[in-house]
Amino acid sequence: MSEPRVLVLDDDPRPRLDRLTGRAQVAYVDEAALAERLPTADVLLVWNFLSDAVRDAWPGPGARPRWVHTASAGVDRLLSSPELAASETVVTNARGVFDQPIAEYVAGLVLALAKDFRGTWELQRQRRWRHRETFRLGGTRAVVVGSGPIGRAIGRTLKALGVTVTLVGRTERPGDPEFDTVRAIGSLPGLLPEADWVVCVAPLTEESVGLFDHRAFGLMRPDAHFINVGRGQHVVEDDLMDALLAHRLAGAALDVFAQEPLPSDSRLWDVPNLLISPHMSGDTVGWRNDLADQFCDNFDRWVADEPLFNVVDKSLGYVPTGSG
Amino acid sequence: MSEPRVLVLDDDPRPRLDRLTGRAQVAYVDEAALAERLPTADVLLVWNFLSDAVRDAWPGPGARPRWVHTASAGVDRLLSSPELAASETVVTNARGVFDQPIAEYVAGLVLALAKDFRGTWELQRQRRWRHRETFRLGGTRAVVVGSGPIGRAIGRTLKALGVTVTLVGRTERPGDPEFDTVRAIGSLPGLLPEADWVVCVAPLTEESVGLFDHRAFGLMRPDAHFINVGRGQHVVEDDLMDALLAHRLAGAALDVFAQEPLPSDSRLWDVPNLLISPHMSGDTVGWRNDLADQFCDNFDRWVADEPLFNVVDKSLGYVPTGSG
Repeated sequence: MSEPRVLVLDDDPRPRLDRLTGRAQVAYVDEAALAERLPTADVLLVWNFLSDAVRDAWPGPGARPRWVHTASAGVDRLLSSPELAASETVVTNARGVFDQPIAEYVAGLVLALAKDFRGTWELQRQRRWRHRETFRLGGTRAVVVGSGPIGRAIGRTLKALGVTVTLVGRTERPGDPEFDTVRAIGSLPGLLPEADWVVCVAPLTEESVGLFDHRAFGLMRPDAHFINVGRGQHVVEDDLMDALLAHRLAGAALDVFAQEPLPSDSRLWDVPNLLISPHMSGDTVGWRNDLADQFCDNFDRWVADEPLFNVVDKSLGYVPTGSG
Repeated sequence: MSEPRVLVLDDDPRPRLDRLTGRAQVAYVDEAALAERLPTADVLLVWNFLSDAVRDAWPGPGARPRWVHTASAGVDRLLSSPELAASETVVTNARGVFDQPIAEYVAGLVLALAKDFRGTWELQRQRRWRHRETFRLGGTRAVVVGSGPIGRAIGRTLKALGVTVTLVGRTERPGDPEFDTVRAIGSLPGLLPEADWVVCVAPLTEESVGLFDHRAFGLMRPDAHFINVGRGQHVVEDDLMDALLAHRLAGAALDVFAQEPLPSDSRLWDVPNLLISPHMSGDTVGWRNDLADQFCDNFDRWVADEPLFNVVDKSLGYVPTGSG
């Protein structure tokens, strides 16, 4: 067997793929050259996971990569290509790499909101000493929408901080060893009024687009907070902005946006009780190496003709819980 | 027995002492009137725990309150009166009320430093999208100086976030059920070079004044962070400022200061990698009621002639671990 041809949709910095030396023909392409090179590749590594180029470049019937790996947890951009979604090409993702970093990030956001850190550092900038009372996290209640490994890691971390956590997934799953009954997404309207914290970390699917709109925010309490580390399209941003400006919601933190980078003229930047971060919740030092290593691990399986891990169920839009 | 005379060193808002109605003669005094009223009181409640008035007003030999309760965890201000320290008056404190709130606050600060939240919100103010890599908390190491209930709660919370925690107390205590060996303060120089996080929550005593000086900061790693929620006098502020400005320390957060409120012309406000908050780490909504309730609980014991809880060992300067 000749060396498999691995095509990398490029991004700066490039992945460390030393482990593939002598075992694969690795080529790097930019978005413009992708369409031309794709039909000759055996494997596509979507290293620039913020690109929509695969959707535009995916070849019609005929030659195409048999395996596509994306260096992201979300596969919504990839599966926006109906041809790729319908093909026999196996899609794998970066499930696992981001679990603990994102859980830490969300715990930090929850504590920052409870303790009003931004207010404190705004006062520091003004050299003003103003004591305030803050909120105690212990004893509050969180609803985490997304019951995959990242949602579970978030839930576990919040529980360790004394928060009562309800996980919400696509379907109801009773008897979860850590979270009792994982609730179905249809139960969300009944859960929102009880929540102090609502965290969105769901995969983006047709069902979850626009899940957090004026109805959802209207069901939340005025002293509750909303956090999105899923995808920008989960949130109707204007509805969130309205709820925050009208104080029908105490505060929110967004790490993801419908348009990224968030345009500098977006009105979101200025909403007083909204914390904005630039899609970085999972990106801790070394993350790129972790992502490259994970691809190489799966490549080892591929050349050995063993089943790949993190195989996405393309009809669901994510790796089902319990699969390898 | 006539109703005991309870004198309250006043602060705004006053404590809720409804439970004492009909059981005590409660009188409120300001700092100026304290000296005159003190000799006629049976019990002194130091509600304004930031005041130094007790030291100045404490009566010489003769009549004096037999019990002083301070609505704070630290008793350094009270015991700065040598006459009170040497007297037979029982001193009790607010041990317990602040444990969980301060633990949450410190966990929030650690996460805010690891994830550079202040940098993110400074960029938000400038409407700038700038992705950065942040630090992962799991797998890092913390040294918590202070092994009382607040230090233990901090240690427990950081452990739950995946941090390896070493507690440091006055003396070595092997076999701690949660923290293995609690190390003696004399071991600190050997522990500092290993720490990613150094948290000070010690009681302020003669031994701990100025504990964190240029020598201590010199032993810490340039990528380490320092957090003080103990007392401002634990830290030589100029030495910390020098270490931060020279990048011999990655960052710090101070909730307490040698002079409070921190004067508006202090140079500390502007140190770029220093987070400043106005002595509020333990003050969550309802804290004043918790403090008043705790005093009333101890008052119930006092009138029943039962042993008080949270009795301060005045030679140590805190309530010894294991005491009621």
